[in-house]
Amino acid sequence: MPTDMVTIPARRGKAARARAGQHIRVVNTEGTQVVDTWAFCADDYAEHMSMEASRAWFMKLTASVGDSFVTNRRRRILTLVEDTSKCAHDTLIAPCDRERYGLLGVKGYHDNCRDNLHASLAELGISIPATPPSLNLFMNIPWTADGKLEWGEPVSSPTDYVVLRVEMDLVIAFSACPQDILPINGRAGHITDAHFSIE
Amino acid sequence: MPTDMVTIPARRGKAARARAGQHIRVVNTEGTQVVDTWAFCADDYAEHMSMEASRAWFMKLTASVGDSFVTNRRRRILTLVEDTSKCAHDTLIAPCDRERYGLLGVKGYHDNCRDNLHASLAELGISIPATPPSLNLFMNIPWTADGKLEWGEPVSSPTDYVVLRVEMDLVIAFSACPQDILPINGRAGHITDAHFSIE
Repeated sequence: MPTDMVTIPARRGKAARARAGQHIRVVNTEGTQVVDTWAFCADDYAEHMSMEASRAWFMKLTASVGDSFVTNRRRRILTLVEDTSKCAHDTLIAPCDRERYGLLGVKGYHDNCRDNLHASLAELGISIPATPPSLNLFMNIPWTADGKLEWGEPVSSPTDYVVLRVEMDLVIAFSACPQDILPINGRAGHITDAHFSIE
Repeated sequence: MPTDMVTIPARRGKAARARAGQHIRVVNTEGTQVVDTWAFCADDYAEHMSMEASRAWFMKLTASVGDSFVTNRRRRILTLVEDTSKCAHDTLIAPCDRERYGLLGVKGYHDNCRDNLHASLAELGISIPATPPSLNLFMNIPWTADGKLEWGEPVSSPTDYVVLRVEMDLVIAFSACPQDILPINGRAGHITDAHFSIE
């Protein structure tokens, strides 16, 4: 890993600040790791990347290179400018949370993306009241013509990456999704580090 | 209209309380009106119907009769038990807001579902800090196999209705969507009243 890369530790979150015009590279280091992603306007955390507004913006279930994600105030916040993976990065599925693992039969605490989001923001001194829908990088949720969804296995390869252009000063937050019951991080449930850099 | 029906005035919102076990009938009175819908747990408004958690629950883009919508804490809040429309009620698109109409070229204020949500809750003395993604009843957003979305025209007929079983004590809020620029309420942009009853 180049030395300027920041680690998103396996099963954990990591947040950072970025300025308009910078680029954020998110690397799927081992190729099988879903990275839940959120972005918040630096001036007002109540304005944040919105999956429901972004789908209405690009009028697709998922973004392609060149598409922008927009905020809940319909302003561009991130643009997908490069993508070496073959993944249609999911926009449909809620980030995992404690209740989700309870439904999957887990007794006691399980690491989860919701708590990772809030913990990563807390490291920057930021608190937000709710959990917006996440952009689920490298998460493969295929759909059928009649609208059925499936928990797909990863289709990306080691060192695959996406580059997101930063459209406004923002705080970005990532979670290396700890989902080890469903096959979205691979059938072995092997949760790994991922990495990012701000360039 | 039967006398027990409550009007959702054209271009406006209306909220009401309902108890677990009741049924909410939502009538598309003139057949072309999209009704944006939200539900909030009566004990804690921070728990609300979640489109992203609901899709993960029923693993489809849209609900069918028998499917439940769940909250951001993964608890069932409403179940679709009857539906005379031929509509795959949209779960993907953000409720309209002021900024959306600005992007569509509207100068000055335009009625919008976000403001209608908050105004309808205010009539019940309720304030919430953000706007969750809405369940867009009677809104026809077709998708293609490669994931493209389209602003479809209504496919429902006058007096078509859905019935939602109430799974927990809740506050439900509706907005008769004032979108008169895109064809989602019909190509004529004719915005009408809709109605509901709690049975």
